Amino acid sequence: MTQPDSHKLSLNTATVRQRWKLDQIIEGCARHEIRGIAPWRDQVQALGLKASARLIRHHDLILSGYCRGGMFPGSTPEERREKALDNRRAVDEALELGAPCLVLVVGGLPAGSKDLPGARQQVRDGLSELLDYARPLGMPLAIEPLHPMYAAERACVNTLAQANDLCDELGDAGLGIAVDLYHTWWDPQFQQQIERAGLRRLLAFHICDWLAPTTDMLLDRGMMGDGVIDIRGFRQAVEAMGYTGLHEVEIFSQNNWWQRDPDEVLAICKQRHLEFG
Amino acid sequence: MTQPDSHKLSLNTATVRQRWKLDQIIEGCARHEIRGIAPWRDQVQALGLKASARLIRHHDLILSGYCRGGMFPGSTPEERREKALDNRRAVDEALELGAPCLVLVVGGLPAGSKDLPGARQQVRDGLSELLDYARPLGMPLAIEPLHPMYAAERACVNTLAQANDLCDELGDAGLGIAVDLYHTWWDPQFQQQIERAGLRRLLAFHICDWLAPTTDMLLDRGMMGDGVIDIRGFRQAVEAMGYTGLHEVEIFSQNNWWQRDPDEVLAICKQRHLEFG
Repeated sequence: MTQPDSHKLSLNTATVRQRWKLDQIIEGCARHEIRGIAPWRDQVQALGLKASARLIRHHDLILSGYCRGGMFPGSTPEERREKALDNRRAVDEALELGAPCLVLVVGGLPAGSKDLPGARQQVRDGLSELLDYARPLGMPLAIEPLHPMYAAERACVNTLAQANDLCDELGDAGLGIAVDLYHTWWDPQFQQQIERAGLRRLLAFHICDWLAPTTDMLLDRGMMGDGVIDIRGFRQAVEAMGYTGLHEVEIFSQNNWWQRDPDEVLAICKQRHLEFG
Repeated sequence: MTQPDSHKLSLNTATVRQRWKLDQIIEGCARHEIRGIAPWRDQVQALGLKASARLIRHHDLILSGYCRGGMFPGSTPEERREKALDNRRAVDEALELGAPCLVLVVGGLPAGSKDLPGARQQVRDGLSELLDYARPLGMPLAIEPLHPMYAAERACVNTLAQANDLCDELGDAGLGIAVDLYHTWWDPQFQQQIERAGLRRLLAFHICDWLAPTTDMLLDRGMMGDGVIDIRGFRQAVEAMGYTGLHEVEIFSQNNWWQRDPDEVLAICKQRHLEFG
């Protein structure tokens, strides 16, 4: 079991967004020599797209992905059309920022619906349409399977197998998978499905830890080492496939990490990445 | 979409256990003309095994399963041995009660462990050993895949495919699956895996609803109709495989159903089973 390359650490800005705005996060990453960053759209909007791109370049940071597009299902054609247009804007922004991919949280059931297969079909259709836009522009789309506990409200793509199925169906060009261990560590098919994905589809790799017990379904993610995920084992499995990209840390933590001084959080991220990543 | 047979309703006693002891629950089921019941071991112990069996027979109730065995993984051989002996006692009790199967919640990671494949191997080994005991006695074991959000602490068998794999490996005689919609509704392989299971492996069918949002990972299950699960569709899919067994309602609900008068809960269970089951 080897230590990870410390230069591969990337910070998803959600990890410290409660206390720092995007410019502070960018400067914080530079100060802590964290080379990668994954900004969220609303923060980019607040700072300004061009200003964000400029500041990221100024500090020699690189993106591990742009957060995020998706949320394809909708109750009406109009709602889906709105989402489609917004997703195209997300592709444009990702291009301006020089992101390696636009991460997609695909969305769950439309309001009032119990039709999960139907929602999955809407995801397929919305993704296909977005691909038509993103492919010629050269912006890869990364499907992020979310934990099954988010199937109703956030993403009805819940396994790596489903993401691979979508890639099979829609074609590999400009399409791949964001592997987030928080969402996939339980999956008995993890190894089999990253082998099926192969290097070409492995567009992003996200880490944090699963706390036992977990007290909140959304906002109680753990820092690497504080939970039960064999992060090092999974990281080595992904790198054994040839993955050489960044290791993006994304921690939603209402009662712990979001309460702390972000400089402390970044320092601990670096240390825990080396120790457990 | 046809209504379910109202005589197929069964009550998992956890649904009203906060306010009623087992004898009250048995009498309550009889009073509400709920024909099936699935008692928990600790309640049976409190009332007495023979007294429980007698009272259930007296009221002409039938069991949909006995709750529960499993919890196979352990940190030490001694711990696993203790669990094995306890599981054998659970088989004996299930026989005395005339249960159609012993439901198995297989257990998660041993304390301090991050070795999920290892825990799964321990489940396989523990299950194999318990089968050696239960098979000659004629007590079927029903593997219940639990939602992936319980992988660390309660059950590392999280998909119907895993349960089918275990049945393939250990042999079908006296072994099958308890399909609980709360745990499996999100599974994109649901239909494929119940077809793979076939009638022989479908030993139990549990229903309740997934609330959106869900506010607690353990104790916020919904009454049928209050959430997003297409219960009727799934029930018909299972019955299309030839399943003619009971529909067991199991609702853990700290802040809603557990606070209500159990007579009200039972009446609503009956009504919602007809409407949404």
